[in-house]
Amino acid sequence: MEDKYDIVIIGAGPVGLMLSTCLARWGYRIKHIDNRPEPTPTGRADGIQPRSLDLLRNMGLKRKIMAHDPAKVYEVAFWDPNSKGIHRTGTWASCPKFIDARYPFTTLLHQGLIERVFIEDLEKHGVQVQRPWTITGFKNDGKDPSYPVEVRLAHVDGTLCETVRAKYLFSGEGARSFVRDQLGIKIRHKDPIAHVWGVMDGVVRTDFPDIKMKCTIHSDAGSIMVIPRENNMVRLYIQIASSTDPDWHPRRTATAEEVQRRAQAILKPYSITWDRVEWYSVYPIGQGIAERYTLDERIFMGGDVCHTHSPKAGQGMNTAFLDAVNLAWKIHHVEAGFAPRSLLSTYESERKLIAENLLAFDAKYAKLFSSRLPSAGEVADASQQGQGQHQQQEENEFVKTFKASCEFTSGYGVAYQPNAINWSASHAAQHPLFLSVDKGTTTQRPGRIMTPATVTRVVDANVVHLEQEIPLNGSYRMYIFAGQPERTRTALRDLAAALSNPKSFYHAFRYSGALAQKDRYHEPHNPHSAFISVCTVFHAPRAQIEIATLLPDLLAAYKDHVYADDVWDARVPEAKAAAHAKMGLCEERGGVVVVRPDGYVGCVVGLREGGGTAEALERYFGVVTGREVSKGERAVL
Amino acid sequence: MEDKYDIVIIGAGPVGLMLSTCLARWGYRIKHIDNRPEPTPTGRADGIQPRSLDLLRNMGLKRKIMAHDPAKVYEVAFWDPNSKGIHRTGTWASCPKFIDARYPFTTLLHQGLIERVFIEDLEKHGVQVQRPWTITGFKNDGKDPSYPVEVRLAHVDGTLCETVRAKYLFSGEGARSFVRDQLGIKIRHKDPIAHVWGVMDGVVRTDFPDIKMKCTIHSDAGSIMVIPRENNMVRLYIQIASSTDPDWHPRRTATAEEVQRRAQAILKPYSITWDRVEWYSVYPIGQGIAERYTLDERIFMGGDVCHTHSPKAGQGMNTAFLDAVNLAWKIHHVEAGFAPRSLLSTYESERKLIAENLLAFDAKYAKLFSSRLPSAGEVADASQQGQGQHQQQEENEFVKTFKASCEFTSGYGVAYQPNAINWSASHAAQHPLFLSVDKGTTTQRPGRIMTPATVTRVVDANVVHLEQEIPLNGSYRMYIFAGQPERTRTALRDLAAALSNPKSFYHAFRYSGALAQKDRYHEPHNPHSAFISVCTVFHAPRAQIEIATLLPDLLAAYKDHVYADDVWDARVPEAKAAAHAKMGLCEERGGVVVVRPDGYVGCVVGLREGGGTAEALERYFGVVTGREVSKGERAVL
Repeated sequence: MEDKYDIVIIGAGPVGLMLSTCLARWGYRIKHIDNRPEPTPTGRADGIQPRSLDLLRNMGLKRKIMAHDPAKVYEVAFWDPNSKGIHRTGTWASCPKFIDARYPFTTLLHQGLIERVFIEDLEKHGVQVQRPWTITGFKNDGKDPSYPVEVRLAHVDGTLCETVRAKYLFSGEGARSFVRDQLGIKIRHKDPIAHVWGVMDGVVRTDFPDIKMKCTIHSDAGSIMVIPRENNMVRLYIQIASSTDPDWHPRRTATAEEVQRRAQAILKPYSITWDRVEWYSVYPIGQGIAERYTLDERIFMGGDVCHTHSPKAGQGMNTAFLDAVNLAWKIHHVEAGFAPRSLLSTYESERKLIAENLLAFDAKYAKLFSSRLPSAGEVADASQQGQGQHQQQEENEFVKTFKASCEFTSGYGVAYQPNAINWSASHAAQHPLFLSVDKGTTTQRPGRIMTPATVTRVVDANVVHLEQEIPLNGSYRMYIFAGQPERTRTALRDLAAALSNPKSFYHAFRYSGALAQKDRYHEPHNPHSAFISVCTVFHAPRAQIEIATLLPDLLAAYKDHVYADDVWDARVPEAKAAAHAKMGLCEERGGVVVVRPDGYVGCVVGLREGGGTAEALERYFGVVTGREVSKGERAVL
Repeated sequence: MEDKYDIVIIGAGPVGLMLSTCLARWGYRIKHIDNRPEPTPTGRADGIQPRSLDLLRNMGLKRKIMAHDPAKVYEVAFWDPNSKGIHRTGTWASCPKFIDARYPFTTLLHQGLIERVFIEDLEKHGVQVQRPWTITGFKNDGKDPSYPVEVRLAHVDGTLCETVRAKYLFSGEGARSFVRDQLGIKIRHKDPIAHVWGVMDGVVRTDFPDIKMKCTIHSDAGSIMVIPRENNMVRLYIQIASSTDPDWHPRRTATAEEVQRRAQAILKPYSITWDRVEWYSVYPIGQGIAERYTLDERIFMGGDVCHTHSPKAGQGMNTAFLDAVNLAWKIHHVEAGFAPRSLLSTYESERKLIAENLLAFDAKYAKLFSSRLPSAGEVADASQQGQGQHQQQEENEFVKTFKASCEFTSGYGVAYQPNAINWSASHAAQHPLFLSVDKGTTTQRPGRIMTPATVTRVVDANVVHLEQEIPLNGSYRMYIFAGQPERTRTALRDLAAALSNPKSFYHAFRYSGALAQKDRYHEPHNPHSAFISVCTVFHAPRAQIEIATLLPDLLAAYKDHVYADDVWDARVPEAKAAAHAKMGLCEERGGVVVVRPDGYVGCVVGLREGGGTAEALERYFGVVTGREVSKGERAVL
């Protein structure tokens, strides 16, 4: 008798923990192992980008991260060589104002503390990471059609082993992956150049003024990156060797003292000494991307298994989180009967493109970082007529790349391409009421994150962040921007009537059987089904919104999700209904923004009297859920 | 051999815990007892007002409070009788926009959870509340001049007892106080009317639309107050009897079922039922204020020992917190040698006036709350010509009182009168450079809280709340608004030179002896002394502020407390330097705001070249520290 699980997850780093946490919350049975005896004790990845912080907040985990008082990086300083040593050539916001971010900073906290936040949450949901265990074999043999994958696991000391069956197997093992190797999936190297990096966390004394900022420093003695940390620590990244060096060896190393001496030389004329070193490591790193993320849509991989790159842009953990969330909701929707199995193919197509963009960015960034720029003295010598002065004031290539990449590194630049779930003009669902950026009828682009907006919740007058109101519950999110109540009363009634129709997608996934009997009086997000959550936003002052009289019963069931668009926003200072305006929707007549369970826009539809709005939604969800394809009723959770 | 403590604290409710927490953090030896076997399990006070939340954040405790997901009250709804039962006559912000508050809402969380946050913090600082123990006797016999108070304590079951000596004794015992009784201090009743209240916490089902808002409801069947709570609970306050009733009896009671039936009658035409009742209690309450808060400035009292009132304005815990903080820093400054013993007399004079204001407010509010207003039907009958309509639209007395009291109830209305520590035109310290609201040279009024302002910290470019930058460390706070660097360079140098003078107040409290030897490289708030912390705010973009070149060494030692006043503020939209503008200071030439350790403004001084600024500060601190009075050097911590 083999134990059966919905999923076996190998590796309890960021990608494995995020996947496990999502699926555990949504009720799946999980076997989660890690080959380390305990979570990361020190060092490793530590940068949480603005978009990841949104995600953590959406999971209710942000406060626990912040309880550790992480460092926050708002600006990056650039230092270049001059005749005295180094000088600051400029600073730039790490998440500039042109990005509409709730948290316009990078949060720095050591990976072990972040892992523990997830592990605690997992334990609340009955999942214990089994340590130190490793995977010894697996095959998708389909012997049990419901649990097609056999996985063999063993204690790292070899004394114990077990064989289990699962619906899915996930490898979040890191750059060295047994699963990837067994599957014979190759790593493609975008940039053939490899580097050896030294990284040191510690508490320092220095007169270098930007020690609490993120800095990239080029000097005649080499290059260094400075990243502030929690507990008054600072991390230094120093490149020790590059495969372009004449004496290159990937096993090249350096002692902590050598790296400190190097840092002291680079930082001149400033001084630096160490009170203590918490962590020091040297590791070779190359850029690579896995050719496939899955072969059979049963055995998946994510995080560092699929993409490796230099640590400097602070993207590793963030990309891992987004890999995991992307896969989690898709597995959930397939297993819940909300979507056809083909949804799973979008995991690789969506996430691999992001990784490729990341590597392209990283290659450009890393090259600039590791290439020594000419010092001010050299520049002056070369130009003779004071053109050096001019050249210094121009932005160098490094700064240009950095600026252009802010949106990407903040996480807000993630843009999934058109496919079955990201509507476009060439989508299988067609209807005149689909709105689009190209037609200028909305600002919300399918495949990108929904713009944040601040509104007032009607029931308790709390001022809230609309994009955070529905937690990461695995449900689609329908935001009905309902314009002025007196203008849209009929349109809302018509929409609700159509959604109530037993043939509608909305009705198709309603709780049935024993689930339908459960008392949901106090259930704010999923009163009717686990498939979708609905928010309604009126362009009216809060005090004038009477939920019971203004909303049809179907929408009024989401009574905690009715909002007044009555909060002024500096980004649309002239708007009377700022949330409507930010979505690019008519402030009087509104519109409907459909958002995927992971927060990315799926489609945008006009809100009109008659059947049109519901028709357009029906066509989109018909494709998404596969109902239109099969023409039959799907299994219902 | 008796054990010796700096202070013995009786009672671990809000006032005792706040006092204990402050003093424990500042290094005092504390004996803290409570006669309950464990912290409050359910119910009791639960409203944290905006100003109290500022204070908790300043102590680093806000996040732990918020981790419990308390309810937040942004608005209060008023319901009055009409022919159908009740109807909403209006809503009002609980902390309206005219109040410049960071957290414009009331936080609702049950007292036990709040107590546990303090208890956890105390334990980190080595203080364990001893339970269930009680006080059995005490006397200020002066037998040991350093520890003049003898306190006798006993286990509540009488099996154990101990006698200790202390510098201070504090009673936070609640309305029934052994210490107050023993001292023979009388309670004066401002309003002779007493009431019996029923209070019920529970989870309800209702179609009453404002169940998640704070509501005051008058109906023909009685009056009720609704207050939302954490965990989907709601608290109802119902007045059961009043000493003005013909059959008044202070022991009058009612069962939970009676109160529920009463609530059902009051809420008609809406229905309400209970899923569960977490807590139900009936208690008589009268308004009272203790005639004295201390007799000898060794034995002090605070919180409910000194003032009792109705629960409706949610002021009890908040007033208790502020009593405790007010006393804590004064004991600290006297014991550290920073102030003459006479500072302790300002505890009673400052806090008793606030309690008197609270009772005056409460009496007015309670009277309106318990007096049934005429129903709409009655009004229509009386006026006959539809004047009832008109009358309804006018604000009734209750609403007027409420609105006028918002500033008071938010905690921002606390205004201490001029005295030795709150500068005024009649203060002993006189100098032409003292600025004042009356002269229009500042907006900051001594005895009131400093206005909040958002600035950018120079070292790490973090956008921060200036008023929160110095934690509640027991130190005076000197905010140097330094205007434009090129205009104030000389003024800053002159000020720093004067403060460095061995005869200055600043130098007088510098660490000496072994304390002076301690390595303070990583100490951000108190590099030179525990007496004062200093912030410098420039009207310049952050990137242009070089701390090492712009600031004299004495000020540069507070390198983590240098700020750029470069963040736009909607309250002063035209200002180029919003923080300067909010303080009412010249944006070019600045000024110095001195704030007491508890966050209340002490004095405001102009920033000028020459000796004037330092002279004015010297005179203020001369009075505050008693140095001018004694002409001698005071003991230094």
